[in-house]
Amino acid sequence: MLKLKASGASSKLALNGDAYMARKISLLGLETIGIVHEGDDIAEIIVRAAKREDVTIDDGDILVITSKIVAKAKGRIIKLREVKPSRRALAIAKVVKKDPRLLELILREAQCVVKMTPKHVIVRTRHGVVCANAGIDKSNVTGMRDSVLLLPEDPDAEARRIRRRIKELTGKDVVVVITDTYGRPLREGQVDFAIGIAGIKPFKDYRGSTDLFGYVLRVKRIAIADEIAAAAELVMGNGAEGIPVVIIKGLNYEEDEDSNARELNMPRTKWLFR
Amino acid sequence: MLKLKASGASSKLALNGDAYMARKISLLGLETIGIVHEGDDIAEIIVRAAKREDVTIDDGDILVITSKIVAKAKGRIIKLREVKPSRRALAIAKVVKKDPRLLELILREAQCVVKMTPKHVIVRTRHGVVCANAGIDKSNVTGMRDSVLLLPEDPDAEARRIRRRIKELTGKDVVVVITDTYGRPLREGQVDFAIGIAGIKPFKDYRGSTDLFGYVLRVKRIAIADEIAAAAELVMGNGAEGIPVVIIKGLNYEEDEDSNARELNMPRTKWLFR
Repeated sequence: MLKLKASGASSKLALNGDAYMARKISLLGLETIGIVHEGDDIAEIIVRAAKREDVTIDDGDILVITSKIVAKAKGRIIKLREVKPSRRALAIAKVVKKDPRLLELILREAQCVVKMTPKHVIVRTRHGVVCANAGIDKSNVTGMRDSVLLLPEDPDAEARRIRRRIKELTGKDVVVVITDTYGRPLREGQVDFAIGIAGIKPFKDYRGSTDLFGYVLRVKRIAIADEIAAAAELVMGNGAEGIPVVIIKGLNYEEDEDSNARELNMPRTKWLFR
Repeated sequence: MLKLKASGASSKLALNGDAYMARKISLLGLETIGIVHEGDDIAEIIVRAAKREDVTIDDGDILVITSKIVAKAKGRIIKLREVKPSRRALAIAKVVKKDPRLLELILREAQCVVKMTPKHVIVRTRHGVVCANAGIDKSNVTGMRDSVLLLPEDPDAEARRIRRRIKELTGKDVVVVITDTYGRPLREGQVDFAIGIAGIKPFKDYRGSTDLFGYVLRVKRIAIADEIAAAAELVMGNGAEGIPVVIIKGLNYEEDEDSNARELNMPRTKWLFR
């Protein structure tokens, strides 16, 4: 019999006669959201789809929503033929092999350009995320090749709005996490990150807590909002699969009204890789 | 009624009379793994814990295992007092404020040092992961402050071994993902990455496939193994919570016998941030 202080697994091992139960989290991907149009009420669409698919929305649920449908509801579709590239965009187009009109939009969406190569424009977006093409998306926009989709102007504000609206519609307190897909320095492939949050602290902070052996943990501070985004992407898939909303049930998290996803952006002064 | 080609959500919207069902993934965290010792059979421990907690192991399940318990089973605990720092470690200790014996272990575990600051040593580990301290862990080792835990020597090989052993014990074909927690350039906080995999392709490749509107996706290649690791961390928690194994059910993935987690490490020639 283990003789550790009561907490977590160890205490459960010590409790004879008790039933053992695995800790469970469920991810439910809504399949009937359909195509979202400008002006649509995302919260209402989610509540309707959940009902149709026999998913109850409960207090404490986490609603993970791809930024694509939030952006569409906000009318962030831009027709490239209506964009007039600035002199700066035209100059950059000589270095970066991209449509100067797209470069113009990237510049408008950016606080600053972080990196340029013939194939990449990495910028810091107005929300502070460092990513390629300012998160502008050419897929899943409309049937027209000429259109692109910008990110929502303020994903944190959108998350708060959807959270409030879900409360109005259902009476339930949920967390909202708005996500987008990005590449990562040093690592191959892309994953989803949280770019807007409401109702949750983006970090799970273990600093100062003790581990199984009483050792004080010094550095661990988990980016739980990014892990939530990555987990939801597993269900969302992409493109033809069309699951833009995932409801997560059973996850423990720290509630917070004031946190936002900008806290996940490392300030440039702390960058070890530049 | 939507008039898109039958696939995913859209086709489901078009099928009148059919029951709608949300797509579901479950994550089950095993709470009764207990403390792992050198020589322990991880697969056997998992099978026993699953049984105790009434979790069936099925074909296609994904077993996510923290590298900590794999390393412990492989006897990768080192007593610092038995480490003699080399001249190089002592020289580095003048720049980096860390125990020279720990620096010695970091150097032994590294292919090369990528970055040094007074507070950080970032190396490329023998497995090719770029991370702080070569993934050497000071928490959750034993009761002794003097001990540290190195990563498993070959996490991919360990993943394959555990997968084979699960097959022997249960007759089931599972995927194994071995994880560790790392910081990320440009992003605050840490997340779990996949450092060893067996039975799964680490990427979900959308390049060349078409989206809802028939637009050909050009760049999307999702690091599904890293997303699996991040998702499992949500259940694992840390330290006092003690959930070192998570079983994921219901996830679609591409089977592969030959893939390994090294493919997730971006080759240095492709680094935009250095």
